[in-house]
Amino acid sequence: MMELPFDQVRTLLAVVDEGTFEAAAAALHVTPSAVSQRVKTLEQRTGRVLLMRTKPVRPTESGQVVVRFARQLAAMENDARLALGLASASAPARLPIAVNADSLATWFQQALTRVPQDPPIYFELYREDESHTATLLREGRVMAAVTSSAEPVAGCTVRVLGRARYLPVANPEFAKRHLSSGVLERCLPDAPVIVFDRRDDLQDRFLRDFTPDGRGASQLRHQIPTSEGFCEAVAAGLGWGLVPEPQAEPLLKTGSLVELIPGQPVDVPLYWQQWKLDVPALTLVAETIAVSATEALYA
Amino acid sequence: MMELPFDQVRTLLAVVDEGTFEAAAAALHVTPSAVSQRVKTLEQRTGRVLLMRTKPVRPTESGQVVVRFARQLAAMENDARLALGLASASAPARLPIAVNADSLATWFQQALTRVPQDPPIYFELYREDESHTATLLREGRVMAAVTSSAEPVAGCTVRVLGRARYLPVANPEFAKRHLSSGVLERCLPDAPVIVFDRRDDLQDRFLRDFTPDGRGASQLRHQIPTSEGFCEAVAAGLGWGLVPEPQAEPLLKTGSLVELIPGQPVDVPLYWQQWKLDVPALTLVAETIAVSATEALYA
Repeated sequence: MMELPFDQVRTLLAVVDEGTFEAAAAALHVTPSAVSQRVKTLEQRTGRVLLMRTKPVRPTESGQVVVRFARQLAAMENDARLALGLASASAPARLPIAVNADSLATWFQQALTRVPQDPPIYFELYREDESHTATLLREGRVMAAVTSSAEPVAGCTVRVLGRARYLPVANPEFAKRHLSSGVLERCLPDAPVIVFDRRDDLQDRFLRDFTPDGRGASQLRHQIPTSEGFCEAVAAGLGWGLVPEPQAEPLLKTGSLVELIPGQPVDVPLYWQQWKLDVPALTLVAETIAVSATEALYA
Repeated sequence: MMELPFDQVRTLLAVVDEGTFEAAAAALHVTPSAVSQRVKTLEQRTGRVLLMRTKPVRPTESGQVVVRFARQLAAMENDARLALGLASASAPARLPIAVNADSLATWFQQALTRVPQDPPIYFELYREDESHTATLLREGRVMAAVTSSAEPVAGCTVRVLGRARYLPVANPEFAKRHLSSGVLERCLPDAPVIVFDRRDDLQDRFLRDFTPDGRGASQLRHQIPTSEGFCEAVAAGLGWGLVPEPQAEPLLKTGSLVELIPGQPVDVPLYWQQWKLDVPALTLVAETIAVSATEALYA
């Protein structure tokens, strides 16, 4: 690799992280024109356009290579500082990680608090759906991701975390009103349903397997884009839905929810994808999360 | 206004809502080439490019006008159907609304369940930060928004909902370890902090007002992008943070959290912005939400 001056590489990373030249300048305590100059020099040196000047700026494909290099550099530099006992004087270890919403609302949060905080590791979590996770990994915006995609992003390793279990549930009155007039296979596709967002097809896929004629869920659907809100909307009787088992269980016990098809849960496999990168902080976090996942998820 | 054929207008709306020509075709039960043809005809008729062919597609400025017209049309059509007693045969009333994350995690969810569901109204909620909310309203993707921005989007009315209260809190051990070595005004800017996402500057703005030298919050920061996760991270002692009062209160009672500066809450005004549009469903929802807000927020 040709020599890439560290200050220019770091500047590029700051621009991508902060989104604008102005914000990067503020973060680096230099003028915006110095930031612009460094990026331009780096582009001349590499002979490539590295940034699309959009709002926020986005790295080009070549820019993504440099961003990943910059992040690895920062991580390794931090490790060296730690080893030299200079940790307190250095920038803190920052780990950008993408996590799907249901994991974040159930087991992931606890995994985080288990990561030893000496020296401290600062988490920069992104709540993203699957389709976007790959982009974040590829663009170098995150170093790791909890995702349901087993397909490795180029330059990443994949490791199985376990299977998250969802239960088809509804409020008992809702079930009586909408689902007691015939066989469930016929009623459920007509009943109002809760989905997480426009791209959430978990309910549809579940029903297509369940119904003899392969119908998906009703178009009578509420879209509730938080994991806790989703569960509350189901409990309030706005529709049926597939709720993560840890959230459903207490409500099943109190009778606020009923299981629609006992013994037929939906399991979604989850994977840990991370850059191939030998950084102790990342390794430590990956191990802690894998252990928490083993406890919280099904094998 | 020149005559815009309804099927073409509806098709444009479906493409914007579904994101691709293929998905719109599936939703409308026609072929993708029919969708493409209708959009092209509409563009010739208006003499404007209406869609940017990105992934997902986005309406141009002219496209936004047509999308808003299409959504108003759909809403009014639905009302007419209801008035004619044809409701059951019609498409359900869909209300796309953008809501900031903390509202969604606290009072908004309950407001939703209070909206009379006869005839049913289906909510399509978008969890968005302030900066994006205006775009969603302008592009016609949502008909209303709960936002901290008082500045009306063109074509929208603004109404005060109340003030959401945040308390500066921390885990008691965290407070002892990081905040007991001197005056709080000096310690707090150096202590690890939790922020919601990269754009969340609530903690920084609060500290700038609080500290004599106008310092913001520490760069030792965890980024936790769910409202419940944010509160849990503070309670787990990863950092201090401004937590919505309804979430903080039970944890203050049990002693899991301590208030850092009793009697100095931070109030964030919230507004309801909606299209100027006389649709009973929207009016009903706006009224119900305003009433819930009066109960849940400060005047």
